[in-house]
Amino acid sequence: MNINDIPTRTLRAEPSGNAIEIIDQTALPHLYRTLRIDTLAGAAHAIRAMQVRGAPLIGVTAAYGLALAMQNDASEAALDAALQCLGATRPTAVNLAWSLARMQSRLQALPREQRAQAAWTEAGTIAEEDVAQCRRIGEHGLARLRPLAKSSAPMNVMTHCNAGWLATVDHGTALAPVYAAFDAGIDIHVWVSETRPRNQGLLTAWELRQHGVPHTVIADNAAGILLATHQVDAVIVGADRIAANGDVANKVGTYLKALAAREAGVPFWVAAPRSTIDFACRDGQAIPIEARDGDELRVVGGLSEAGVPATIRQLPADEAVGNPAFDVTPARFVDAIVTERGCCAASREGLTSLYPECSHAR
Amino acid sequence: MNINDIPTRTLRAEPSGNAIEIIDQTALPHLYRTLRIDTLAGAAHAIRAMQVRGAPLIGVTAAYGLALAMQNDASEAALDAALQCLGATRPTAVNLAWSLARMQSRLQALPREQRAQAAWTEAGTIAEEDVAQCRRIGEHGLARLRPLAKSSAPMNVMTHCNAGWLATVDHGTALAPVYAAFDAGIDIHVWVSETRPRNQGLLTAWELRQHGVPHTVIADNAAGILLATHQVDAVIVGADRIAANGDVANKVGTYLKALAAREAGVPFWVAAPRSTIDFACRDGQAIPIEARDGDELRVVGGLSEAGVPATIRQLPADEAVGNPAFDVTPARFVDAIVTERGCCAASREGLTSLYPECSHAR
Repeated sequence: MNINDIPTRTLRAEPSGNAIEIIDQTALPHLYRTLRIDTLAGAAHAIRAMQVRGAPLIGVTAAYGLALAMQNDASEAALDAALQCLGATRPTAVNLAWSLARMQSRLQALPREQRAQAAWTEAGTIAEEDVAQCRRIGEHGLARLRPLAKSSAPMNVMTHCNAGWLATVDHGTALAPVYAAFDAGIDIHVWVSETRPRNQGLLTAWELRQHGVPHTVIADNAAGILLATHQVDAVIVGADRIAANGDVANKVGTYLKALAAREAGVPFWVAAPRSTIDFACRDGQAIPIEARDGDELRVVGGLSEAGVPATIRQLPADEAVGNPAFDVTPARFVDAIVTERGCCAASREGLTSLYPECSHAR
Repeated sequence: MNINDIPTRTLRAEPSGNAIEIIDQTALPHLYRTLRIDTLAGAAHAIRAMQVRGAPLIGVTAAYGLALAMQNDASEAALDAALQCLGATRPTAVNLAWSLARMQSRLQALPREQRAQAAWTEAGTIAEEDVAQCRRIGEHGLARLRPLAKSSAPMNVMTHCNAGWLATVDHGTALAPVYAAFDAGIDIHVWVSETRPRNQGLLTAWELRQHGVPHTVIADNAAGILLATHQVDAVIVGADRIAANGDVANKVGTYLKALAAREAGVPFWVAAPRSTIDFACRDGQAIPIEARDGDELRVVGGLSEAGVPATIRQLPADEAVGNPAFDVTPARFVDAIVTERGCCAASREGLTSLYPECSHAR
C-alpha cells in the first residue's frame, strides 16, 4: 500500500451499519493492515489486545462494540452484558467508561427495537465529536506553542508514547498542536521517545514521517539529558485519565519527563478531550493502574533481515517482569491542560473553569 | 556451558603474558563466549565495540591493551601511539584515562627493554586493585544498606544499567553492596531497569540470576511509578565519571531515576572506585558525553524462535535517532558516594575528605 493511500482516520464505520474497520496497531509500524470487526467480542478483543489503543480511540471503539452487540440482541440483559464486557477490557483510560456511560444513558431510555439503530448513530456522533474536539485541541495548543517559535532554529517539542491521530479518530491530542504548528508553517521538530515496552513511539515516528514533520527518535532514558541541556522547548503528552484535581495518568514514563521538564524550567502540557477528565475521581491515587503481561518486555517485535514482521526473545520466559502500563503525574508538575475548550491550570479550579457544568460532579 | 562453570572474573590474563581472555559482552545474556585478545588493536576494538564495558573494566582492559602494544614495540613512539589509540576509544568513562595515565607514568621512567614486562605487571596490579576496591565498596555499601533492612519484607534496591561484576573485574560497584547484603543473609530484591538502548539491564538480570539474588526486570519508564508508590528503599548506580564537585556522569537514564528518588525521599547512592573520580574535572558540564550510533536503537538483539542469537530492525535505517550514551546527575541529587574508602557526600569537601591527597588537584 502506498503511504499516501493510508487514511488518517483510525476507524471507519461501514455504511451497511454492520461492522467497523480499524487499523491493526499491533502490526504497525512494520505492517499496515486493517481489520474488520462485526461482533462485540471482536471489539473487546481489539481493545484488550491493543489493536486499537489511545484513550479517545478506545472510547469510540467501545461505543461501536456496544452498537454491534445491540444488533445481535438489544435486550436489557444483553445491554448489561455488553457494558460489562467492554468496561472490563482496560482499566486506566476513563474515556472507555465515559463512552459506555453515555451509550447506556442514551439506550436505556429507548424501547428495545430502536436500540440497534440509535446505538450505531450515537457511536458515530461520539466519533465525529472526537474528530472535532481533537481539531480544536490542535488550535488551542497552537496558540500556546506559537510564542515559543524561534526565528533562527526549530522549536523542539518532546512527546511520549503515541497521542497522535492513531490514538484518536483523527488529528490526535498531544500531536494535534504539532500538526497545527507544522501546517501553519512553524519550524518545528519533535523528540519522539521510544516508549518501552510497547514502543508506541515508533507509531509516533511513523505518523510524523507521513506528515513530513521533522523528528528524532530517542530512548526513553535520553529525555533527561535533552531537557537538562536546553534542547527542548515544550513537552506535550496525552492522557488516559485526568483526575478532578488535575493529576494525570498517562503512559508509564510520563512522570519522569514531567520531573525533568520542571527541573529544566520547560513547560509540560497535557492535551486531552473532555472524555479523558474524570470529575468523579478525586486524585491520582484513585486512578487504577493497569499491570500488563511481562511478555511485553520479554519479547520484542520488528522486521527480520528479510523485511518481514518478526519477534525475538530478549528475556527468558521465567524471568520476573514488572510492567505497569501507566504512571501518575501529580498536578503540580503539569503547567497546563489543553482541551477542546481551551487551556487551563491543572487543578480543580482550572478544570471547572473550562467545564462549569461539572463543578458539582463527584 | 553450565552456568556454574562461568567464572565471575571478566578478564583473565594468560600465564604466557601474551594475551588476555575476555567475556564478549555483546553476546550476553543470550550467548556466553570468551574472546582472546593479543594485540593493541584487538583491545581497542573490544572497548569501542563494547565487548568489554563498564568504567572499571574499560580501564583494566586499556591497561592490558597498552601492555600488549609494548610486547610488540616498546619505543617511545609506540607508547605514544598506543596511548592515543586506546585513549580515543570512548570519551566518558574517566577510568580509561586514569588507567592509561598510570601506565604511562610507570613506563616512561623505564628503559625500553624493561617496558613490556613492567606493563604486564602493572596491568595485573590495576586489575587486582580493582577487585579489592570493589570488594571494599561492597562492605561500605552494605554498612549503609543494613539499616534499611526490614523484618517483614524484602529490602528493595533499584539499579540502572549494569554495574555488577561484568562491569568490573569482579564484584561490581553498584551491585557489590547488593551481593554483600545477599551473602550476609539480608532479604533483598533488586529492580533491574532494562537500560535501553543497549539493554545492559539484561546483563544485570543474568548476573543476579546466577548468584540467586531475587530481582524483577522493568522498563526504564517504570522507575518513576515504583519510586512514587514506595516500592523502592534505595537506588544504587555506578558511575563513568564523578566530577570534583560530585556531579556524576553515568548511563543515560540515571538522572531521571535520581529526580524520581529525590521526589520520593528515597536515598540515591553512587558506587565507584577512586579511578572513576576526576578531580581535574570541575563539574558535570565539563564531562564529555558520548553520542553513539543510532543503530543501537534501530536494531534490537535477542533470541530467535529457534533459540539462537538474532536481531530485528525496529526503525528504518533512514529514521533520525539521537543516542547520547550518558547523562549527568547533579551532585545535589546524590545522597552519598560509596568508594573503597567509605561513604561521603557528593561534594568537593566530601570527596577530598576521603582522598585528602587529591585536595589540590585541578
